[in-house]
Amino acid sequence: MRVLGIDPGLRNMGWGVITVEGSRLGHVANGVIRTGQDGAETELGARLSVLFRGLCAVIAQYAPDAAAVEQTFVNRDAAGTLKLGQARGIALLAPAEAGLQVGEYAPNAVKKTVVGVGHAGKEQVQHMVRVQLPGVSFAGPDAADALAIAICHAHHLQGRALRVVSGQRGVA
Amino acid sequence: MRVLGIDPGLRNMGWGVITVEGSRLGHVANGVIRTGQDGAETELGARLSVLFRGLCAVIAQYAPDAAAVEQTFVNRDAAGTLKLGQARGIALLAPAEAGLQVGEYAPNAVKKTVVGVGHAGKEQVQHMVRVQLPGVSFAGPDAADALAIAICHAHHLQGRALRVVSGQRGVA
Repeated sequence: MRVLGIDPGLRNMGWGVITVEGSRLGHVANGVIRTGQDGAETELGARLSVLFRGLCAVIAQYAPDAAAVEQTFVNRDAAGTLKLGQARGIALLAPAEAGLQVGEYAPNAVKKTVVGVGHAGKEQVQHMVRVQLPGVSFAGPDAADALAIAICHAHHLQGRALRVVSGQRGVA
Repeated sequence: MRVLGIDPGLRNMGWGVITVEGSRLGHVANGVIRTGQDGAETELGARLSVLFRGLCAVIAQYAPDAAAVEQTFVNRDAAGTLKLGQARGIALLAPAEAGLQVGEYAPNAVKKTVVGVGHAGKEQVQHMVRVQLPGVSFAGPDAADALAIAICHAHHLQGRALRVVSGQRGVA
């Protein structure tokens, strides 16, 4: 099974694909779709197109079975939240258009699953992603975050499968 | 020339298509793409797909030459702004994917163009849309707003064309 993680952003959209076989995870690929600096407001549609086509190409190339997107921090200014929302809409749309169910995880949930604590720093997260995906190298910080989201989703999918098997396993 | 106006929303996405021939405007069609009540967060991708496919179908059917989207009010809570941003991302993506340039207008700019004052009420706006598009009937309030956005864009496109022709017409 392959899981796609997406770290949404209007300038940099991070993505990462991993394999899940039982409890073993493996790295497939990761990258960042870049739309350049914040430009004129009129370019927004074109930048969203770049993100959408980029994600569709990733999905076509790596054929994930499931996808997950980071649930964004909303404690920034309203204009920033709106921009992030626009990018996040694309991050959710692309896998949905490919028929994939899309999981959503808050940043703290990702950190808690990957590192064990909800308030881990970026370096701790990247370290634990490296430990769980031996040999990985990151296309950028957003790609590392995307792999962490994919790992988080893999663990939750496994937990759900175990719950179904055992009927009582208390994985949250 | 045909202009598509879009009033973005996650539950109700209003759209309206008008014709522009010189200074004459005409109504072509309007409607609302509905995704139902706010449901579980997991359904978000599917709802964005409904919006995207709905807008792509409108564009395929009515073949607009230009499009405009309302620039959203951001003075609401962060969670609402994020939701609106996600819907707005789709509203900008669909015409961009069809190769259309997408204009963006703040609500006050739309009111000022359609009614003459920036703080007009909804009923005033709807009245002036009816005056400028004789015989129109609205599929809903969001569709009426979308037609107002299309009218606003038509006026701005004409203003720009007139400026090009006269070289000095001072339309803002």
